[in-house]
Amino acid sequence: KIFLKMSKIIAIGRNYAAHAVELGNSLPSSPFFFFKPFSSIINAAFGENIEIPTEFTNDVHHEVELGVVIGSRARCVSRENAMEYIGGYCVALDMTARDAQEQAKKKGLPWSAAKGFDTSCPLGTIIDKSLVPNPYDLELFCEVNNKLRQSGSTGDMTFKIDQIIESVSKIITLEPGDIILTGTPPGVGRVVEGDVIRFGIKGLKVHDGQDYVFSCPVVNRK
Amino acid sequence: KIFLKMSKIIAIGRNYAAHAVELGNSLPSSPFFFFKPFSSIINAAFGENIEIPTEFTNDVHHEVELGVVIGSRARCVSRENAMEYIGGYCVALDMTARDAQEQAKKKGLPWSAAKGFDTSCPLGTIIDKSLVPNPYDLELFCEVNNKLRQSGSTGDMTFKIDQIIESVSKIITLEPGDIILTGTPPGVGRVVEGDVIRFGIKGLKVHDGQDYVFSCPVVNRK
Ligand SMILES: [Mg+2]
Ligand SMILES: [Mg+2]
Ligand SMILES: [Mg+2]
Repeated sequence: KIFLKMSKIIAIGRNYAAHAVELGNSLPSSPFFFFKPFSSIINAAFGENIEIPTEFTNDVHHEVELGVVIGSRARCVSRENAMEYIGGYCVALDMTARDAQEQAKKKGLPWSAAKGFDTSCPLGTIIDKSLVPNPYDLELFCEVNNKLRQSGSTGDMTFKIDQIIESVSKIITLEPGDIILTGTPPGVGRVVEGDVIRFGIKGLKVHDGQDYVFSCPVVNRK
Repeated sequence: KIFLKMSKIIAIGRNYAAHAVELGNSLPSSPFFFFKPFSSIINAAFGENIEIPTEFTNDVHHEVELGVVIGSRARCVSRENAMEYIGGYCVALDMTARDAQEQAKKKGLPWSAAKGFDTSCPLGTIIDKSLVPNPYDLELFCEVNNKLRQSGSTGDMTFKIDQIIESVSKIITLEPGDIILTGTPPGVGRVVEGDVIRFGIKGLKVHDGQDYVFSCPVVNRK
């Protein structure tokens, strides 16, 4: 069982070519990342609310992603043994204020507010890596009000998990409990108050035989 | 005494006009920020090393800043009572891979690697707010090898601390132990292996009558 201590969330951008294309972005030649603060996490297993900070954004998008949970300290780790540093996995939503992000991109400013607002990181239950023998055959999906918006295989990642760990750990030490969000497949889109987002990994059965699926309602921040 | 639990570091950009100008940047109309991860913190009171991640950057700059340490949970706090949420202060270096930051700015990409590499956040001892009756009359300074590089009064901040707390807490909840870096005065510049950075707050006497000054050697990351 993985204990999640306060640590950091590192999110990889444009790691599925089809998603980079849908937003009109160029493809990165090496993995790039941004941070989401721990204060952005909500527990999707409890169905906690995703809050739209309406004073700041009017265009919040869902991005369903595979989260990699670090199990042991990784500094300057090579690709060859990178997978040994993983403790588990989870499904996540990298909720994004797209309007604020586009403004930041244009001005050359940080993405931090656009990616880091409260409730912008709903996480599913963390599962031990033993339940995920192959992290590249997972079918991520995301529905809004029971309509499928995103689906894609983790096999379509441009930079594989071991490459990401190698690349990041050259610059930033990864610590137990850190979470790496590995990018989103295509189909991202806007949500508004009253929507319900259902997301998970298709076909994955956890501990008690349950589906690995979560739901979070969308509300406006009060 | 302030206990620093694992939390987040929020750093404000371009909050001293003279510094924005020296880098050829436009002045922001509202405070913008980026994150530094807790893994970037080193203890300047122990004289820990600042490591240049040479595989990634060849141009690391010092930025001396006043750090505001949050004392109690702040969500949607108004300017009028924002100062009540402060627990203490510290001096900090917002070490920056300027080459990587400039690349990121040009491409519209996050600043996270440029601002978040290991050892990029040396912190002086956290002091209780009772020792700082007026946070706007502090003289920040930064020397490299005993030559003065930066000096400036915290009175020159564009956005005051209460405005920053109001603005950030609309989007992101501030928690006890969070640190806000409030921007740097002019004079930023490059350091290389073998340099020693000495920084602090001029004239400030702490607990035992000691000067509030710290030194960190600069080395290349091995
Ligand atoms: Mg950022
Ligand atoms: Mg994403
Ligand atoms: Mg700075």
